[in-house]
Amino acid sequence: MANENAQFLRLFGRRIRLGMVGGGFDSIIGETHRIAFQADGLFDLVAGAFSVNAEVSTATGKTLLVADDRNYLDYHEMAELEAARPDPIDAVVIATPPHVHSDVAITFLKCGIHVICEKPLTRTMEQALQLKKTLEDTGRIFVLTHCYSGFPMPRLARDLVASGALGRLRMIDSEFASGGAGVALEPDDLSQRHWRFRPEIAGREGILGEVGTHAYHLIRYVTGRTPSRLSARMQTFVDRREVFDNAYVDLEYPDGAVGRIWSSYVATGNQHGLSFRIFGDKASVEWREEDAEYLRFRPLREPEVLYRAGQEGTSEFVSRSARFRPGHPEGYIMAFANLYTETAFAIGAVKAGRSPEPWLKNLPGIDDGVLGMQMIEGAARSQSAGSSWVTL
Amino acid sequence: MANENAQFLRLFGRRIRLGMVGGGFDSIIGETHRIAFQADGLFDLVAGAFSVNAEVSTATGKTLLVADDRNYLDYHEMAELEAARPDPIDAVVIATPPHVHSDVAITFLKCGIHVICEKPLTRTMEQALQLKKTLEDTGRIFVLTHCYSGFPMPRLARDLVASGALGRLRMIDSEFASGGAGVALEPDDLSQRHWRFRPEIAGREGILGEVGTHAYHLIRYVTGRTPSRLSARMQTFVDRREVFDNAYVDLEYPDGAVGRIWSSYVATGNQHGLSFRIFGDKASVEWREEDAEYLRFRPLREPEVLYRAGQEGTSEFVSRSARFRPGHPEGYIMAFANLYTETAFAIGAVKAGRSPEPWLKNLPGIDDGVLGMQMIEGAARSQSAGSSWVTL
Amino acid sequence: MANENAQFLRLFGRRIRLGMVGGGFDSIIGETHRIAFQADGLFDLVAGAFSVNAEVSTATGKTLLVADDRNYLDYHEMAELEAARPDPIDAVVIATPPHVHSDVAITFLKCGIHVICEKPLTRTMEQALQLKKTLEDTGRIFVLTHCYSGFPMPRLARDLVASGALGRLRMIDSEFASGGAGVALEPDDLSQRHWRFRPEIAGREGILGEVGTHAYHLIRYVTGRTPSRLSARMQTFVDRREVFDNAYVDLEYPDGAVGRIWSSYVATGNQHGLSFRIFGDKASVEWREEDAEYLRFRPLREPEVLYRAGQEGTSEFVSRSARFRPGHPEGYIMAFANLYTETAFAIGAVKAGRSPEPWLKNLPGIDDGVLGMQMIEGAARSQSAGSSWVTL
Amino acid sequence: MANENAQFLRLFGRRIRLGMVGGGFDSIIGETHRIAFQADGLFDLVAGAFSVNAEVSTATGKTLLVADDRNYLDYHEMAELEAARPDPIDAVVIATPPHVHSDVAITFLKCGIHVICEKPLTRTMEQALQLKKTLEDTGRIFVLTHCYSGFPMPRLARDLVASGALGRLRMIDSEFASGGAGVALEPDDLSQRHWRFRPEIAGREGILGEVGTHAYHLIRYVTGRTPSRLSARMQTFVDRREVFDNAYVDLEYPDGAVGRIWSSYVATGNQHGLSFRIFGDKASVEWREEDAEYLRFRPLREPEVLYRAGQEGTSEFVSRSARFRPGHPEGYIMAFANLYTETAFAIGAVKAGRSPEPWLKNLPGIDDGVLGMQMIEGAARSQSAGSSWVTL
Repeated sequence: MANENAQFLRLFGRRIRLGMVGGGFDSIIGETHRIAFQADGLFDLVAGAFSVNAEVSTATGKTLLVADDRNYLDYHEMAELEAARPDPIDAVVIATPPHVHSDVAITFLKCGIHVICEKPLTRTMEQALQLKKTLEDTGRIFVLTHCYSGFPMPRLARDLVASGALGRLRMIDSEFASGGAGVALEPDDLSQRHWRFRPEIAGREGILGEVGTHAYHLIRYVTGRTPSRLSARMQTFVDRREVFDNAYVDLEYPDGAVGRIWSSYVATGNQHGLSFRIFGDKASVEWREEDAEYLRFRPLREPEVLYRAGQEGTSEFVSRSARFRPGHPEGYIMAFANLYTETAFAIGAVKAGRSPEPWLKNLPGIDDGVLGMQMIEGAARSQSAGSSWVTL
Repeated sequence: MANENAQFLRLFGRRIRLGMVGGGFDSIIGETHRIAFQADGLFDLVAGAFSVNAEVSTATGKTLLVADDRNYLDYHEMAELEAARPDPIDAVVIATPPHVHSDVAITFLKCGIHVICEKPLTRTMEQALQLKKTLEDTGRIFVLTHCYSGFPMPRLARDLVASGALGRLRMIDSEFASGGAGVALEPDDLSQRHWRFRPEIAGREGILGEVGTHAYHLIRYVTGRTPSRLSARMQTFVDRREVFDNAYVDLEYPDGAVGRIWSSYVATGNQHGLSFRIFGDKASVEWREEDAEYLRFRPLREPEVLYRAGQEGTSEFVSRSARFRPGHPEGYIMAFANLYTETAFAIGAVKAGRSPEPWLKNLPGIDDGVLGMQMIEGAARSQSAGSSWVTL
Repeated sequence: MANENAQFLRLFGRRIRLGMVGGGFDSIIGETHRIAFQADGLFDLVAGAFSVNAEVSTATGKTLLVADDRNYLDYHEMAELEAARPDPIDAVVIATPPHVHSDVAITFLKCGIHVICEKPLTRTMEQALQLKKTLEDTGRIFVLTHCYSGFPMPRLARDLVASGALGRLRMIDSEFASGGAGVALEPDDLSQRHWRFRPEIAGREGILGEVGTHAYHLIRYVTGRTPSRLSARMQTFVDRREVFDNAYVDLEYPDGAVGRIWSSYVATGNQHGLSFRIFGDKASVEWREEDAEYLRFRPLREPEVLYRAGQEGTSEFVSRSARFRPGHPEGYIMAFANLYTETAFAIGAVKAGRSPEPWLKNLPGIDDGVLGMQMIEGAARSQSAGSSWVTL
Repeated sequence: MANENAQFLRLFGRRIRLGMVGGGFDSIIGETHRIAFQADGLFDLVAGAFSVNAEVSTATGKTLLVADDRNYLDYHEMAELEAARPDPIDAVVIATPPHVHSDVAITFLKCGIHVICEKPLTRTMEQALQLKKTLEDTGRIFVLTHCYSGFPMPRLARDLVASGALGRLRMIDSEFASGGAGVALEPDDLSQRHWRFRPEIAGREGILGEVGTHAYHLIRYVTGRTPSRLSARMQTFVDRREVFDNAYVDLEYPDGAVGRIWSSYVATGNQHGLSFRIFGDKASVEWREEDAEYLRFRPLREPEVLYRAGQEGTSEFVSRSARFRPGHPEGYIMAFANLYTETAFAIGAVKAGRSPEPWLKNLPGIDDGVLGMQMIEGAARSQSAGSSWVTL
């Protein structure tokens, strides 16, 4: 990717100026975003409103070397003042809990600022549609950080499906089943609950937003297909927990393919637990994020082929997604960085008056977010109706 | 196991005399049984009616060095004549298609001959219950060859569950999803169809009998639990096929645990595709038959432990199930042989006037068969009712 | 293999009558041989002199249902009396410690009885050459049970090398590095030492005979090449041990290829520890006995191919070596059984007046044994000379 | 690591100003360094002399947004002018071929600038010792980027060895055997040879500098032991190649432990090929960079334990080395970034008047470089003397 990065900087003439809402020092995901957008050297973090806790917010900005006058406490103010500057931020990263995503995003979009937003898109479908409307009105770039689509091997899987190498798809299976202590246990002091376990913030079916939408996006990204019907059954296993901590969503596709998604916080002993297996009538592919470098391709009547990130012979798109020779594990952060760097290229294209579409078509965006919300809503309906099948 | 085999032969004074119904040279499973019961040297095959095709039957018997007067064409005659001999067979192996299992088994049981029977138990629940009745009347030994329960590592998993090492069970997931050309394709000439793809022999939901009951037995064997409700959705993907070739069965247990079984003939690129994962609140275990030597034990907050067949420190039951030092792959046939050898010990116990229960409690039997039939019946009911949940 | 077995029995008219020298109940390897030759049903054990301990010997024979008049205490007597019978044994299995192999083998060969012999061939090169001479004089079949060459995947590796798929071979690396407690520790009571740890029986460099020759044979079997020079360095790590327990042997081949063999009893935590990796200028292959079902083929510029035992598309030789569909682990005993069954076919060919060569060419024999002795002798010379390079 | 980074920035008040010598756009390693030092946000690249090719050098600096007056063509000038500035670089990264390392490093050290240097340390031992001398005189920080010591799992291995969990070490085995097309083939046009294949630049035994020193450092890092004797045999397999492309180095340690290092450019089909296995009398550990997240710990008599980066229960040092929850692959660049970030902390400590030792003790430095040169020199001596054993 080095050459493209260089070309970007030559054309853009500077790094992209980035702001951040949320992602203070008490947030894991904020730090993850920062490592991801810093790695390729195409972004400078120059502004932020990092937390609803003013102390955390200010301290975070100071430490990140944000200038005092751009270290905001309120994102409305931030949007306004940045837009009024001669050197405003080009884009904002939203790393807040999901129930405020739409407010933040709409605020910045209306100020002409591109948005990079954590998933799930919003808390409600109404918010999602409102955000989509604003986006259409403003014509800004909107990237939803379904970060796993930045790994080289799911991208190779996507190429293989598109090329027909799997034949006609039949079964599409996916899991995002974690089970580490951080999600498998409720804290002794319930006031210490992470917001994702609070029904009033994340909803009872918040597990589908937190991890389910990642799996759902990933199989849609790889297969290019969206289910038309689903059935969901969800359970709460942990004592005193008030949200679902295990969810099975069964899927049907318009063309007759079927699928399943298993989302869990209580898959004890699992680590990250994100994977997919896709079966066609000619071959299948399997990918597990825990061993993200490998893609297993299994054709009928022939031995398994073990692709590895960085190998020769893949498309330019896949090849560019790996920075190193095969054998050097790319890892999670380079996958995430791919999303950022491709977003940079899209922003650069807009600035240069070119279409950002060549980059956006490979990046998760507003429609992915809306479809994710639709899946969550459908699952909630199905669950309420005794796991009956519902149309999406 | 060597010492126990020696002890058995010393006490029994000879090898067990075995007959076989079905399992002619045109049958893969017949040969598999023979390797399995020959390996430990506790059985002699001395009689058989190997095929409905008289030519195949006779040739098979001749080649297997069965004496001409015990190389039968009809299993009724075989049962009668054997029972009348001074040196009758002790037990019969039934390796026919399932729709004749009950007739054959009942015939031999009534002649006082122990039965080792292929799965699924029967074609219909009615047959299953009739067979169970006969068994209770005759007091003979009946072993159902759910052969995968003979592998050392599922047995270790069973010990771990029973010991409480997994804590309270929550999710019980299993697959028997094959996809080799032999099951993934229909033959050009439909008259060449294997009986398992003939609806009139195996039933439309025959896939559940063929592979589904193996997975179902295995998780019941390991967890000691039987589901109380299920929902099934089954598909037929292959053109011109008249039976289901993919089946998802979702399960609920009386204590709130949930589970899934995926059975398939069209998991293209999969090989054998039998596996289970069991999650408790303290740990989980995973086993895949394709890498049958290993059991992965994953406790909360601690690193994964990779058990291997033959290692020190397991129970006498598990330890005896592996013949070799760890690192020497035991393989499928030794698992199958475990079932036969334990059956021999049970037969020896009966002959010696002792209870065979210490052996039978670890062997799949009539109740496992009936519960398997119940699962198939339940799945058929659910499928007919739009995948609704049904009580078992 | 079922069809060939049937054909063999039809032609031979009966099972092969087998005798055994050594392999009593206090021997692991004896039981392993018995499972291996029983599995396919082509052999009957009808005679034996199972131990130098008369009590063990007799009890073993009785339990194995050997007739009293063929349950010998002395192998000379056994050879003579068997040869004089109308129904003599066709072949004898030698499962004694190596220092008596040549005496036993020569005794039976001279009586016209085929020999199946444990490795290493003999204790000394002199014995080895004397045995070779006798074999040439008698024209009997001699199979050395380097059992790992019976696994399907090393046989596929052999095909791949022969086909040129690896290109010109460069590096040939092999290991047989065990580390279980059984070999890693000396017993508290030294009189309980297994003979393999007694310098007076196995020699100080006995490790090379015990495990080194297996690795050496395997790479010779797969590559079809024999080294011309070696350098050895051997260590004794365990307190009070009087033989080497770790050995590195570096190799050079006449065509410029190089290699290494690592043999160990103290590779703590390793299980069986047998593996090879062979690198050519076009591709490499890797096989590990612990995961014996797989062969990893790695071509330059292309992704790794993961062959699995039983898959389609291999030669008739490889295909016949796997009894089951891919995914059903064949395991150690089926590999060992392959050697026995192919030996049966060779014996059948001799009896029918045909050449046994089509079978013998794939079976380890006298020349492999002599070359193994040569390697041991060379390593001892090198070690004495400060690990200098010596010519074989 | 987030908290420590924040603390660093709070104390240091700004990012560390970094210069770079070498690492232009025609260099893979330059880009790798940049991603690594950018990721955690503790460094700003503000100056450089990126290439001996003036055009490449200037273009690289421009694109990397280096100010024109700090975009140098000559590193002597760069050192002088930087030292004279009020805002000089704090440290310089040396990413040139090894034969100029010492000149560059000495130049900057004499100007009071810390040095972060690619391996191998230098081209000759004389250069190495001269550099060491300068370093002692100047008291600056010197970090040698043996980047693999930044991975969490080798660090856990180091803890395990130090804790005695492996017992007394016996065998220490390591490999850095690559075989991708980039190193396995000579270019058609020999003038296009990478410098590492030019004997006049890298030496005939340059392979030991390029990859051998990485393996050598890694096992020294993990075991805390340095060999006292070695024997080397090196080959050149590729036509027209003038340097060794395969090297075996056998090692002896003062305490009786033994070891081997295999370095290769022609391990066809291997990818990165860096690994180690260390055997003690109580347990062994294995690590492979290609699956860098895992460390396999294998105790005697107990099942294997599979550690994964990010898991609970490790030391603060290991825990800090992983940024994410287990299951999120850290990857190569985070390992490399660990070295940079710990270097930042060391530089911060110096600036604050504290000892940098707590950081430096875990970072590869000048002594590691000198010992690596000593190994190369020893191997060259051994090779010249027919692979005889030489003292280090």
